[in-house]
Amino acid sequence: MVAEPGKLLSLINYPSDLKKLDKDQLPQLCEELRRFIIDSVSYNPGHLGSSLGTVELTVALHYIFNTPYDKLIWDVGHQAYPHKILTGRKDIFNTNRMYQGISGFPKMSESEYDSFGVGHSSTSISAALGMAVASALKNENNRQHVAIIGDGSMTAGMSFEALNHAGVAKSNLLVILNDNGIAIDKNVGALSEYLTKITTSKSYNRFKEKIWYFMGGGSPYGKSSRAVVRQLGSAVKSTLLRKSNLFESLNFRYFGPVDGHDVIRLAKLLKDLKEIPGPKILHIITKKGKGLEKAEQDPIKYHAPGTFDRKTGEIIKTECTDRLAPKYQTVFGRTIIELAQANDKIIGITPAMPTGCSLNLMMEKMPDRAFDVGIAEQHAVTFSAGMAVQGMIPFCNIYSSFMQRAFDQVIHDVALQKLNVVFCLDRGGLVGEDGATHHGVFDLAYFRSIPNITIVSPLNEQELRNMMFTAQLENAGCYVIRYPRGRGVMFDWKTPFEKLQVGKAQVIREGNDIAIISIGHIGNSAIKAAELLIDENIEVAVYDMRFLKPIDEDMLHQIFKKHSKIITLEDGVIIGGLGSAVMEFAADHHYSNTAIKRLGVPDKFIEQGSIAELQAECGFDLNSIIKTIKEMLTK
Amino acid sequence: MVAEPGKLLSLINYPSDLKKLDKDQLPQLCEELRRFIIDSVSYNPGHLGSSLGTVELTVALHYIFNTPYDKLIWDVGHQAYPHKILTGRKDIFNTNRMYQGISGFPKMSESEYDSFGVGHSSTSISAALGMAVASALKNENNRQHVAIIGDGSMTAGMSFEALNHAGVAKSNLLVILNDNGIAIDKNVGALSEYLTKITTSKSYNRFKEKIWYFMGGGSPYGKSSRAVVRQLGSAVKSTLLRKSNLFESLNFRYFGPVDGHDVIRLAKLLKDLKEIPGPKILHIITKKGKGLEKAEQDPIKYHAPGTFDRKTGEIIKTECTDRLAPKYQTVFGRTIIELAQANDKIIGITPAMPTGCSLNLMMEKMPDRAFDVGIAEQHAVTFSAGMAVQGMIPFCNIYSSFMQRAFDQVIHDVALQKLNVVFCLDRGGLVGEDGATHHGVFDLAYFRSIPNITIVSPLNEQELRNMMFTAQLENAGCYVIRYPRGRGVMFDWKTPFEKLQVGKAQVIREGNDIAIISIGHIGNSAIKAAELLIDENIEVAVYDMRFLKPIDEDMLHQIFKKHSKIITLEDGVIIGGLGSAVMEFAADHHYSNTAIKRLGVPDKFIEQGSIAELQAECGFDLNSIIKTIKEMLTK
Repeated sequence: MVAEPGKLLSLINYPSDLKKLDKDQLPQLCEELRRFIIDSVSYNPGHLGSSLGTVELTVALHYIFNTPYDKLIWDVGHQAYPHKILTGRKDIFNTNRMYQGISGFPKMSESEYDSFGVGHSSTSISAALGMAVASALKNENNRQHVAIIGDGSMTAGMSFEALNHAGVAKSNLLVILNDNGIAIDKNVGALSEYLTKITTSKSYNRFKEKIWYFMGGGSPYGKSSRAVVRQLGSAVKSTLLRKSNLFESLNFRYFGPVDGHDVIRLAKLLKDLKEIPGPKILHIITKKGKGLEKAEQDPIKYHAPGTFDRKTGEIIKTECTDRLAPKYQTVFGRTIIELAQANDKIIGITPAMPTGCSLNLMMEKMPDRAFDVGIAEQHAVTFSAGMAVQGMIPFCNIYSSFMQRAFDQVIHDVALQKLNVVFCLDRGGLVGEDGATHHGVFDLAYFRSIPNITIVSPLNEQELRNMMFTAQLENAGCYVIRYPRGRGVMFDWKTPFEKLQVGKAQVIREGNDIAIISIGHIGNSAIKAAELLIDENIEVAVYDMRFLKPIDEDMLHQIFKKHSKIITLEDGVIIGGLGSAVMEFAADHHYSNTAIKRLGVPDKFIEQGSIAELQAECGFDLNSIIKTIKEMLTK
Repeated sequence: MVAEPGKLLSLINYPSDLKKLDKDQLPQLCEELRRFIIDSVSYNPGHLGSSLGTVELTVALHYIFNTPYDKLIWDVGHQAYPHKILTGRKDIFNTNRMYQGISGFPKMSESEYDSFGVGHSSTSISAALGMAVASALKNENNRQHVAIIGDGSMTAGMSFEALNHAGVAKSNLLVILNDNGIAIDKNVGALSEYLTKITTSKSYNRFKEKIWYFMGGGSPYGKSSRAVVRQLGSAVKSTLLRKSNLFESLNFRYFGPVDGHDVIRLAKLLKDLKEIPGPKILHIITKKGKGLEKAEQDPIKYHAPGTFDRKTGEIIKTECTDRLAPKYQTVFGRTIIELAQANDKIIGITPAMPTGCSLNLMMEKMPDRAFDVGIAEQHAVTFSAGMAVQGMIPFCNIYSSFMQRAFDQVIHDVALQKLNVVFCLDRGGLVGEDGATHHGVFDLAYFRSIPNITIVSPLNEQELRNMMFTAQLENAGCYVIRYPRGRGVMFDWKTPFEKLQVGKAQVIREGNDIAIISIGHIGNSAIKAAELLIDENIEVAVYDMRFLKPIDEDMLHQIFKKHSKIITLEDGVIIGGLGSAVMEFAADHHYSNTAIKRLGVPDKFIEQGSIAELQAECGFDLNSIIKTIKEMLTK
């Protein structure tokens, strides 16, 4: 199925086409663009809500700015579908997020209009500032640099670091604060409250309006803003106005708040702002899911709703005759409540992903003991460390690829001090359609080289539960539990808790021809391969290491004494992970006559696609495992 | 030599002793404490300036608060000498920063008064908030939690993340902003300008005073602040006062600025603040190096001045009859200027370490092209990426252990996008007296598992120059140059530039008995070992890999074909680094009859000491190398 663009939209392939429109045609174009996105995403799932919120802004930006010479940097990139559609990718938008299709995020290698690749939050101001300072150095003073960032992304420290620098750098920088009160979940924190306050404060806004009028601006955006600002600069510089705003404290000129769905006014305003030099911030108010009633009403569900009815917005539930195993996320969310009910030291912490990781269940049930700290991985980790100092046992749940943001804090604040913090690394391994920025494939390797860390990864739901149970027993120290996105393999997952012995692997099945040593959920593929090969009279032994660190050396000795052909299998990079650990063991203990083959993610960035497609590309899907076994046996 | 405490200080071993003093005795105690620190640090070098600035604050804190029940969290910890001396460590302060002595930073395992271990900046508010929220959950509502943080540390994003969360959390949190305008170098950025503005703005402060008087407080700190604040809360909450301050925007009650060297006033104020619930910030103005004239005049030099005359403050220059090789830092600082003079795309970037890494030389010579972005590693990396998008070639210099803070940005913004950013990882390897938080020992391992990264490490000064030269040639991509703290080995370091072939190792010397494969400066120890063993008729081959990634497989094939005994040598963790790379190579290519021994940092955190002492502890100093060679040859 392919969505059909409306009359105006069908004429537009590039911003140059857009610029030919009369400004009065822009609302119509917005309507068509919104329709096109709803239609497309209704059958080819993606990030809906954010993109519906930026339709008018995107049209206004490309109408006014000289892209791609002028630089637009979209923070995170969930909201960039209108941008993609207006910049040469309308006709291939039906391949969005598909294997070898276009990426769901802006990506430099995909289009010259994508000024900067994104996926993780809060990079846009830093990148835009870098470009702006570079332009100044190259005397390209007419070039504009625009970072478009949500109020959620604004809470991450990196944004503040960039604002702090931008406030003193000579540069042509416009930050557009796209304020909808929501990231993926509801936005939290003092900044969020502050933005609501300045948006809703009548006296504050009246005061600002008054100043504008007084300065001869007529209405704030009626006359050339340049003249207004020039006068503002000299006359009101040191008055309260200048200090009365958080952003102005940081030397940014603040404009707003304005309606982010009034495309004509936005266009006019952006045109004025082009003329104002220096760092400036435009605060716009938008609605996530704008234009699709159900999405407006439940923006969390409609952040990425899956397939839905393009007319009503009703989410389409896939009829399933097969019973499905639960998601690891659900198992985490339910199990932490069970554990917390029995152990009052347990605390739940997430940096802005309560729904994604299912901590929302605990937040509802035990609101005092479960915390969403905002998009703030660094803070989440050290806040957890502080909790642990006081005898609490925090379960800090962070997506694997976002944990890269808090690598130092895990080393410096938790591992070094041997504090009892349990890190639940959700979305470990290949994640599928979100692509290169989101695959959690480096974690096993980067944590393995850090002392005082226990690293475990469950083969199935029961194991996840037992690992969580074990981690909250006395003095488990820095404990990393890594599991993938999606469903496990057990229907009856709610098994009784059992304490795992630290550093103890398990034999899944014995076999004489070849051994697979695996870690985590991917071990199920090894089991399946072994089962399938019985028919061909090939006996595959499968060992589930459970603990990457400390690794079970007794078990490895047994394996190496018995086997001369070993495959290591992990859903992560093969440089530095389980395979490397096994090779180090073999070399350290002089097992010289064993052939070892490492399966996992090779040394390149993996793009988007289904997990099955990507595992095949990487050479560790079921077929590849079987193929590798046969190859090794024929050698 | 041991410093002698004065009359009052000699009576004080713990805060309980301090509390017995009359408050009028506090200034005298401060004077003695300051003298004791100056005397101690004059012969046993350490961080002088910061600690002289916090004498009065520390005395006031321990006088008023019930430590260790109340929690003091010192950010970074450079400033914690007064705290250490007043909390049971006066008599062993002469072992400060020494091998097996006390740490130069607060450390939980050292004292119950050290509520949280530090070293890296900007963790204090997160940790204190974690403790405060935990206390609230445990109904320990009388417990106080105080984070003491400099204006420099406040610029790192992590602090902002913590403020954002603290502003909405129910907790008993006091943040003391120790504002001296300087971190290690002069503090930069918009926040710094803002703090100066609110400190020096007469009208702003007059306005605040007026409100206090109006509210019945008499003088701001004259009456019980609780009553004042209660009235403030209800009456002025929504006035401009509340919004007129950056911290108040984030829901913190703001107090200050006040003189941080008036110990009696500070004590009184802290007593009042204890009674005020919720998040609050006290802004104090201090002088780095206070009380030692030369240190006050040149706080950058006196941050950690080495030995000096205890009376005059004159820095003692060690008379050297031997000619010394230059520091790698100097070679970097001079070489980047040479390169930048020839290539106008080159930019220098440092997050707050211009003097330490010697980028200050370029900042003086080419102020438009060299940037200190503040304590903001994340921003530094992505700002560099933005520069690279615009065709610049940024040299982003970050200490290895601080690079852990920007791990995600290197992956997500630079490597994934194949941008031409050169990372100069200063202080790679063991750094000596700064200890566990500062050793740059994980970098080789954590970067090796990331695709699209070139990782090099110079054997000597000439190599560093050639690596820098090579990195700025066309399209070098993400290029990491890792070198240690301290001196190289060449007197005539200013050699002509030579382009290195990517991924090409070098044979330092051939030899038939055993091979050492090393990377970086530590290779000089291998060379020395080889030279010494000639006398014993042992022929040691030495290979300098230069490139950890891409690794020179041709060279490794040669080595493995020739040698059956191989030692790998690196100044970094042996899990995941060069040794692992060599073992992976051996296993992948079925070199089964080679004994490989990895030398490097074992799997534990290494504390402080001289680099020689620590290398010996880790087993890779010259003696250990020789011993290992002999052991392998006798097997």
